[in-house]
Amino acid sequence: MDAVLDFRSDNTAGAHPAIIEALGRAYRAGPMASYGEDPLTERVVQRLRAIFEHASLVAYPVATGTAANALALSCLTPPWGVVYCHPAAHIQVDEAGAPELFSGGAKLVPVDGPAGKLDAQALAAVLAQDVKGVVHHPQPAAVSITQATECGTSYTPDEVGTLAALAKEHGLAVHMDGARLANAVVHLGCTPAAVTWRAGVDVLSFGATKNGALGAEAVVFFDPAKAREFEFRRKRGGHLFSKMRLLSAQLDAYLDNGLWLANARHANAMAEGLENGLSRLNSVRLLYPRQANELFVALPDAIAERLRAAGALFYPWPSDRPGETAYRFVTSFETRPEQVARAVAAAAG
Amino acid sequence: MDAVLDFRSDNTAGAHPAIIEALGRAYRAGPMASYGEDPLTERVVQRLRAIFEHASLVAYPVATGTAANALALSCLTPPWGVVYCHPAAHIQVDEAGAPELFSGGAKLVPVDGPAGKLDAQALAAVLAQDVKGVVHHPQPAAVSITQATECGTSYTPDEVGTLAALAKEHGLAVHMDGARLANAVVHLGCTPAAVTWRAGVDVLSFGATKNGALGAEAVVFFDPAKAREFEFRRKRGGHLFSKMRLLSAQLDAYLDNGLWLANARHANAMAEGLENGLSRLNSVRLLYPRQANELFVALPDAIAERLRAAGALFYPWPSDRPGETAYRFVTSFETRPEQVARAVAAAAG
Amino acid sequence: MDAVLDFRSDNTAGAHPAIIEALGRAYRAGPMASYGEDPLTERVVQRLRAIFEHASLVAYPVATGTAANALALSCLTPPWGVVYCHPAAHIQVDEAGAPELFSGGAKLVPVDGPAGKLDAQALAAVLAQDVKGVVHHPQPAAVSITQATECGTSYTPDEVGTLAALAKEHGLAVHMDGARLANAVVHLGCTPAAVTWRAGVDVLSFGATKNGALGAEAVVFFDPAKAREFEFRRKRGGHLFSKMRLLSAQLDAYLDNGLWLANARHANAMAEGLENGLSRLNSVRLLYPRQANELFVALPDAIAERLRAAGALFYPWPSDRPGETAYRFVTSFETRPEQVARAVAAAAG
Amino acid sequence: MDAVLDFRSDNTAGAHPAIIEALGRAYRAGPMASYGEDPLTERVVQRLRAIFEHASLVAYPVATGTAANALALSCLTPPWGVVYCHPAAHIQVDEAGAPELFSGGAKLVPVDGPAGKLDAQALAAVLAQDVKGVVHHPQPAAVSITQATECGTSYTPDEVGTLAALAKEHGLAVHMDGARLANAVVHLGCTPAAVTWRAGVDVLSFGATKNGALGAEAVVFFDPAKAREFEFRRKRGGHLFSKMRLLSAQLDAYLDNGLWLANARHANAMAEGLENGLSRLNSVRLLYPRQANELFVALPDAIAERLRAAGALFYPWPSDRPGETAYRFVTSFETRPEQVARAVAAAAG
Repeated sequence: MDAVLDFRSDNTAGAHPAIIEALGRAYRAGPMASYGEDPLTERVVQRLRAIFEHASLVAYPVATGTAANALALSCLTPPWGVVYCHPAAHIQVDEAGAPELFSGGAKLVPVDGPAGKLDAQALAAVLAQDVKGVVHHPQPAAVSITQATECGTSYTPDEVGTLAALAKEHGLAVHMDGARLANAVVHLGCTPAAVTWRAGVDVLSFGATKNGALGAEAVVFFDPAKAREFEFRRKRGGHLFSKMRLLSAQLDAYLDNGLWLANARHANAMAEGLENGLSRLNSVRLLYPRQANELFVALPDAIAERLRAAGALFYPWPSDRPGETAYRFVTSFETRPEQVARAVAAAAG
Repeated sequence: MDAVLDFRSDNTAGAHPAIIEALGRAYRAGPMASYGEDPLTERVVQRLRAIFEHASLVAYPVATGTAANALALSCLTPPWGVVYCHPAAHIQVDEAGAPELFSGGAKLVPVDGPAGKLDAQALAAVLAQDVKGVVHHPQPAAVSITQATECGTSYTPDEVGTLAALAKEHGLAVHMDGARLANAVVHLGCTPAAVTWRAGVDVLSFGATKNGALGAEAVVFFDPAKAREFEFRRKRGGHLFSKMRLLSAQLDAYLDNGLWLANARHANAMAEGLENGLSRLNSVRLLYPRQANELFVALPDAIAERLRAAGALFYPWPSDRPGETAYRFVTSFETRPEQVARAVAAAAG
Repeated sequence: MDAVLDFRSDNTAGAHPAIIEALGRAYRAGPMASYGEDPLTERVVQRLRAIFEHASLVAYPVATGTAANALALSCLTPPWGVVYCHPAAHIQVDEAGAPELFSGGAKLVPVDGPAGKLDAQALAAVLAQDVKGVVHHPQPAAVSITQATECGTSYTPDEVGTLAALAKEHGLAVHMDGARLANAVVHLGCTPAAVTWRAGVDVLSFGATKNGALGAEAVVFFDPAKAREFEFRRKRGGHLFSKMRLLSAQLDAYLDNGLWLANARHANAMAEGLENGLSRLNSVRLLYPRQANELFVALPDAIAERLRAAGALFYPWPSDRPGETAYRFVTSFETRPEQVARAVAAAAG
Repeated sequence: MDAVLDFRSDNTAGAHPAIIEALGRAYRAGPMASYGEDPLTERVVQRLRAIFEHASLVAYPVATGTAANALALSCLTPPWGVVYCHPAAHIQVDEAGAPELFSGGAKLVPVDGPAGKLDAQALAAVLAQDVKGVVHHPQPAAVSITQATECGTSYTPDEVGTLAALAKEHGLAVHMDGARLANAVVHLGCTPAAVTWRAGVDVLSFGATKNGALGAEAVVFFDPAKAREFEFRRKRGGHLFSKMRLLSAQLDAYLDNGLWLANARHANAMAEGLENGLSRLNSVRLLYPRQANELFVALPDAIAERLRAAGALFYPWPSDRPGETAYRFVTSFETRPEQVARAVAAAAG
């Protein structure tokens, strides 16, 4: 019913009705063990084991993506360690130093690459520096990649595998920030397992908040040994919910009956519609291939103004070419085809 | 309908229906600005200003009491600072070092007192040590008291005022952990303002999770200047919710129409019934006066066994006299009179 | 030659000539490997192995006692851990939170006892709380005792053994702050091994600065496994000296030919002389037995004034009885018998 | 007398005789106030004020360059802050995360440039991102440059001024790592003031250890207001020496009568001799212009082998061109002309 053409973020959406209803049901269920020792939380773990085809993963619900990433990384690096990530990574740019806080000061070192993906050769060159055990140097500890990336692209399973193999060769752990994992999985048409643990990922921040939940994520350890400290660090960070079902009820409904993939499929389709509509216009250029639910386009001022005049909301984005102005458009499970159509029509003028 | 006599904690309860319904309404309301810039969050701040009769307080929703306390304290002390608290304080015993994490290593120094309350003379003696500005010594920065205390007692406004005046005299800030503030306010029959900022409290962790919410607390700064760093620290701690209404909808309904006080009144009354029933029995001794919704009693083994046989759940508690075994009983907004009656009957044998 | 009666501290002394000369010799020796890979540092380790009769200890020179303690403790506790110590411990009171900084926020929890010594029963009671593995609670990780204590007393080997056995029983490591270890060893007449590792100590801050060195201490790990992280933490703390011989030359001369014990013997004897002279006077009361090179006495104002009038310098100390004023007198390897005699004569009036 | 051709580092040198003698004199001077309240420390501050022509600077002796840098930066950035530096900066690569430890997790973000110098346009681009006050983003707080750089080049006063003006325009503080400041000042032939505070530097790590001292540096605040927290942070880091004269005696002799500049002049001259001798040979290429006491050259294998066969010691260095092997040669105040001559002769074959 809402006519606002809001493409600013997948954070401004509401939540999927099925998830809201599940939350209400969980809380009318009366007393339940606290701190995660409840049947809902256990069921979430079982669902994830089935979805990821991994019989012994452990998973911990937390409330925000920043907490998921920072807590995951804190288990993978000593305070004097180094985590390699893309310069545009959310953990580097958008978490106000949360990984540094939770890890006790570990260092994030950027390794660049096109379209938001770490370049394997650049990573190999950095890892070849061989500083392991030399006390003067922060110690390489982990590689973190975002899937889908902050530029809206998706690593293929082979690309993940190459980076992970490099990391493993040097004894580093592999973390995946999967705030938009669903969107990548849908785009790639692969199994969740194929692009995570089977490709070498050790720990995954499994996102739900941007894809239909109210506020819930899960930190998934494919290697349970790496989760040894997690529960202490989670509690210490104020991220252990006494009424864990607040998070688990959302995740349970999110994972039920493929809702998580359906939401992502819809969001991706809406982004594809927007891409098709805009890219047909003159002087419109995609900065990166669209491989999830985000579109990064350079638009002439006239088009941008027509969009704004039509009530469209969207954020600027740094262009990678001089003389252009670029923007980011994000769709969600709530974006409706008519909203895309109206935006495209306004852009066309 | 639930027959379990669960007196273990106010964390095992569900949530009040009005709060569940408000959450559903908020999320069906469609898109809303993210990160707290939404009307619900603003309304929560206005409600708090009215309730506390303080026109310029600022308030920030967070999800857990541990986060509320640790973030509040991190704004009040430098990393080389000292926070004085009771040895049984939640921040000292039950937060796995969260205050230390968020403050960058500030020190919690216990100052003892009977029945969970800091003793003013003991605090005065410690503050008289005059270490201010001497670089060898961690620097006194704040005093933190819990209201109602971890022993189920309540500071009177005068008691708060005495401690706060001492703190102020030495340039220390005053923090109140109000996880069960509602229960204390109801017991005391005073205004919320009288036992907080009018008595000298600077920052309050305002609790809702133990008193009917799903998972929500507010950090309330009566002195907005002390909140300068809060927003950075909150984001950095992974405690800034993109869909803030997840928290604000709960707080809004919690504060609406005195629900927060009604819930606490009920919980206190249930605890009072339990107190009356148990204290009439032989060899039953209250460890501390019951001034909120928690009861600490030493019970003969026979009574404890009868309670357990009847299905009652409750935790042991260290007794303050040798040869006794003591226990803690906690009631909540969900505790029903018949549950109290059955427990009392079982105890009486 | 110096007539000042300076009993304020063993920090105001100079350094022993043998140590100054050794430093000069070391630096005229031309180039030497840096960062501790030099023959002097290796020799210091060998000397310590001989002195402590422990063939596999590892030892690391650092420049200050605060660094020694904080770095040692950082290897023994996780960030969510607890270190138990006496309320008057240097690590608790005089290090401006250095242990918290280096450990990432571990908590120091005081366990009291008379005359500066932790009480074994009090420690047992705290450890019996059995919070291990419960994520809500900071995790007991280590016990730290000071030898000789901040009150100038010395733990006997049996007393150390009792506390260490308690710690071991609960899986805690044992640290000893030996800023004045030499003075304790001399007083006790035992071997260094007997009151350290043979009694259960895992890691020792071995002090030299207060006993004749310019500025040097060693962190000694009797259990080399616990030293795994030390070298990274030392470097990270800015405590890895490129010209390590600055520290090692001092320690080498300090440990040569029993100089460390001779200095302490002298300092203790001077303190004993002061004790004998003062305790004969009316209304003079020792707060604690003198078992090292520090004397804590309650003095009538008249005596204190006569001392000050004679040019004596000494610090006040909190008395343990009301109505008294107490002071601390510290002697060092530099204190001369005539200085003690003049002070005693002035006191006697 | 030593024939070793040691060009590995200026850390393997001994110390200048005048500095060793001064140390001995200081310690034979008997008791002196501790913790820096002594006349030597005061004199060091006065000398620095004269040398830098700045009447109100404050300066603090510390023992290592890592401590100087990390403590300086900790005063300039909040824990959620960002410090911009060159990718090859010592603080980024060689301090094992010390800046992160002391600042509570602030982030070092690299800004590249040729020959070890930050590129002003690159810095301007990063600062133009305008993230100030946006809680999602770590907050730009400071720029740190090394003088002379880790690549042996020197920023001119104008170059420093350009970067500092950029920083100031965005409200950032400016730190200079002056581990080899003397060598840069000598090369540039400018006054110390011209290339530091007059060019916009707020805080300087003033190095002495690499240039003739045993182990001593000074943190110099040209803006005393920025030093407010320094003394607490220094103590807390275990870097407050009770016998401060251990450091001050070295600095006092270092600054006396221009010894610091004479040492650097000599070291630079020795490096120049080596440069002249090696650059005449075929296939020898300087990676960067030599503007201090370090030489970075790509050498054919044959030349490198001849140097090693002659007993020369030197470290490899990553070349900036494929197919080359490069090395670093460092000279010091102790390098003798005959050592340079022998190395050159060996290289020539």
